[in-house]
Amino acid sequence: MHEIHATDVTVLGLGAMGSALAETLVKAGVRTTVWNRSAGRAQALVAQGAREAAHAAEAVRASPLVVVCLFDHDSVHEVLDPLVDDLAGRTLVNLTTTTPEQARRSALWAAEAQIAYLDGGIMAVPSMIGQPGASILYSGSQKVFRHHASLFEHWATSTYVDEDAGLASLYDFALLSAMYVMFAGFMQGAAMLAPAGIPASRFAAMAAPWLTAMTGELAGYAEVIDGGDYTVPGQQSLTFSHLGLFIEAIADQGVSPEPIAMVQRLIQQQVDAGHGTEGFARIIESLKHPGN
Amino acid sequence: MHEIHATDVTVLGLGAMGSALAETLVKAGVRTTVWNRSAGRAQALVAQGAREAAHAAEAVRASPLVVVCLFDHDSVHEVLDPLVDDLAGRTLVNLTTTTPEQARRSALWAAEAQIAYLDGGIMAVPSMIGQPGASILYSGSQKVFRHHASLFEHWATSTYVDEDAGLASLYDFALLSAMYVMFAGFMQGAAMLAPAGIPASRFAAMAAPWLTAMTGELAGYAEVIDGGDYTVPGQQSLTFSHLGLFIEAIADQGVSPEPIAMVQRLIQQQVDAGHGTEGFARIIESLKHPGN
Ligand SMILES: NC(=O)c1ccc[n+]([C@@H]2O[C@H](COP(=O)([O-])OP(=O)(O)OC[C@H]3O[C@@H](n4cnc5c(N)ncnc54)[C@H](OP(=O)(O)O)[C@@H]3O)[C@@H](O)[C@H]2O)c1
Ligand SMILES: NC(=O)c1ccc[n+]([C@@H]2O[C@H](COP(=O)([O-])OP(=O)(O)OC[C@H]3O[C@@H](n4cnc5c(N)ncnc54)[C@H](OP(=O)(O)O)[C@@H]3O)[C@@H](O)[C@H]2O)c1
Repeated sequence: MHEIHATDVTVLGLGAMGSALAETLVKAGVRTTVWNRSAGRAQALVAQGAREAAHAAEAVRASPLVVVCLFDHDSVHEVLDPLVDDLAGRTLVNLTTTTPEQARRSALWAAEAQIAYLDGGIMAVPSMIGQPGASILYSGSQKVFRHHASLFEHWATSTYVDEDAGLASLYDFALLSAMYVMFAGFMQGAAMLAPAGIPASRFAAMAAPWLTAMTGELAGYAEVIDGGDYTVPGQQSLTFSHLGLFIEAIADQGVSPEPIAMVQRLIQQQVDAGHGTEGFARIIESLKHPGN
Repeated sequence: MHEIHATDVTVLGLGAMGSALAETLVKAGVRTTVWNRSAGRAQALVAQGAREAAHAAEAVRASPLVVVCLFDHDSVHEVLDPLVDDLAGRTLVNLTTTTPEQARRSALWAAEAQIAYLDGGIMAVPSMIGQPGASILYSGSQKVFRHHASLFEHWATSTYVDEDAGLASLYDFALLSAMYVMFAGFMQGAAMLAPAGIPASRFAAMAAPWLTAMTGELAGYAEVIDGGDYTVPGQQSLTFSHLGLFIEAIADQGVSPEPIAMVQRLIQQQVDAGHGTEGFARIIESLKHPGN
């Protein structure tokens, strides 16, 4: 057994993301122990200076800080549940993508086992780790976050959001949801231009600055939503936003209007409930109260 | 009757948008004649120097360039069809929002009546007209666009897209579709954070820069789409993009997952067709070929 330093880090899981996290630490000169279920994924890291543990228990015992980045919540507990005694008194940072509820369950499980727990949501792909533009949100123990904040900065811009361990994941999912839906909106536009022979790249060149400019509207919508009064003057009304002509134009091209039809359903639900003259931001009510 | 100058402009329709267009011209020193179906909407413009025509025919005869901005395609033809003889030999710029098919029908109608025709799609709200950030796309007669380009710059950044009069509208609808869908994605995120007590404005402050950064992905997706090969290495696979966990997390908050469920349906259609290992950009095929 080698000596243990207060700054040593163990990384469990060497998939695409775990490997990127471990590599960044090794390159930053952090004494890093790695482990992966299947053999053969540690070689490149070992060549760069990482130590490979023979099994997960040995890996956990090697460092006071254990970072876990496995496939999902279940795989994390498959690996860690048998090791609660080894983990007791150590710090666990879970960067596996889970639901907020799962993150809260892991935090409870850790608290019962005397494990200091921080949950993280990675807003980046593996190639972005250690590069500008990568962002990781953290929630759970603020003490753990403060203690290791400079270490976390090796990976990405690090933001602590709340003591509630589920909130990093909730923000993560909220931001990723907005992103995936935006991508579907881009595809809607590109698909409707395609039958006219317009390449997607020509549309992308217009859509990227246009959507960027339109993110400028979000703060205004948010203000109306937080104020709770959708009748504030100066807003574009729900009736004005009726997307029937869009759906017609898209269908005219032989293309599915699914993304824009989804928006129209959110609008229509509010119009049907008698709110047609109120502001567009009111579509959030169709999501908050799906039933009515 | 007053003298007619080559640079005179007539604006038909003084709704929110028509008024903004006319006002910008008047302020720029353009001799502007205005007309609106209902009385009383021209007063402020007349006070600023516009002439008001008693009826649409007089307005059309007042200028070589006639700009029309009415409610929809039908209202444009209700006003203009009786005036084809007056319009013959003049130039008509139609800034009314219509479908591409409607714009093409108007262009044909104009060609038969010897009217030079340009169609426009306004990417702005009335308050943005004449301000930086406003954009108008034009298609149809390139000759008309070239001749009046500097006049159009009074309103907004002006982009000519194609001789096909339907294309300004098609681009317009494509960009607006992408925008509305992006807004719905923002609402999805804000709605799922609300039950945790997180204000929409806090989410907007994170979502605006995040979505802006993510527009950087659009060019890459477009390249894959235009290349036609969704198996190019280095892409995030459709299977990896499976949004089941998102839908679960959203439903956990008691919120409708409608926007993200729409994206998952586009993904699932491709996975079911056996393309799960291919890139995320393939979801556009679910829109291009709705049937299969
Ligand atoms: N890649 C991204 O773009 C990205 C972005 C943000 C967040 N994330 C999150 O990061 C986490 C890891 O993603 P990844 O891209 O590294 O995935 P990956 O390349 O598929 O790697 C998955 C890892 O989990 C391990 N694993 C799976 N089931 C296991 C089990 N039952 N017991 C032990 N180990 C198990 C795998 O080990 P084997 O080698 O033995 O299979 C592998 O190390 C995920 O939660 C993902 O959502 C990824
Ligand atoms: N406002 C925006 O944010 C925006 C943005 C981009 C594009 N646009 C487009 O610009 C166009 C005008 O919009 P707007 O905001 O100005 O709408 P608006 O304020 O509702 O005004 C509609 C105009 O159309 C006239 N009109 C309607 N039906 C008519 C008919 N059958 N015969 C004659 N005139 C008729 C109205 O005359 P009365 O006064 O007699 O009713 C009024 O002048 C629309 O196509 C809209 O989609 C608007």
